[in-house]
Amino acid sequence: MLNHPALDLVFAALADPSRRTMVERLSRGPASVSDLAQPLDMSLPAVMQHLQVLETSGLVRSEKTGRVRMCRIEPKAFATAEGWFTKRRASWEGRFDRLEAFLAEEDAEDARSIGTTKPRRRS
Amino acid sequence: MLNHPALDLVFAALADPSRRTMVERLSRGPASVSDLAQPLDMSLPAVMQHLQVLETSGLVRSEKTGRVRMCRIEPKAFATAEGWFTKRRASWEGRFDRLEAFLAEEDAEDARSIGTTKPRRRS
Repeated sequence: MLNHPALDLVFAALADPSRRTMVERLSRGPASVSDLAQPLDMSLPAVMQHLQVLETSGLVRSEKTGRVRMCRIEPKAFATAEGWFTKRRASWEGRFDRLEAFLAEEDAEDARSIGTTKPRRRS
Repeated sequence: MLNHPALDLVFAALADPSRRTMVERLSRGPASVSDLAQPLDMSLPAVMQHLQVLETSGLVRSEKTGRVRMCRIEPKAFATAEGWFTKRRASWEGRFDRLEAFLAEEDAEDARSIGTTKPRRRS
């Protein structure tokens, strides 16, 4: 999982704003290539190239029905990438939880020692 | 947010397995450049180049203390990228919830009509 080669392709695919716009559109439901091209101000062949990158990464799949190519999101690749973030965050949040527990324990220790130590008299 | 230029850099930074290994290490706690280089089987200058890409993306920051450069994760850039995934998933999960509600309503409708429709007699 750590160096899942699919993650190379998924993150490279998402490093482009046009491809992210396409994925954002598809997360709202399946769409044709023309639908995807509509907000992008780019030629259909350019959109097809971006679609190819998204399909190779596994984030999107498409299917031609008659004359229309319909695209949809592929939740599995998406979950792999999202899971990578979740794991890293769990890792450092766990670290902060342990740090917090340690500091709380230190505070309790201090409170105890303050309670038991008699104030020093001036000589 | 949609086409946050930082996301271009963050996803490009994470498209490389060595850089992901560095982030994975840093999610467990701050580390020196030598610590980061240790599992990577690559020269320190190569690690420094990867570190530069991670710092430019905002995912990591480093600070030189004496002769040691210490690196740590930068939660903000991390959260921006993770949030991108969360939003997309919320979008299509919302869609599936609506679809499910629609189908449940259809089923209820069918059940009602089956209950009220008298069986046809054979002619």
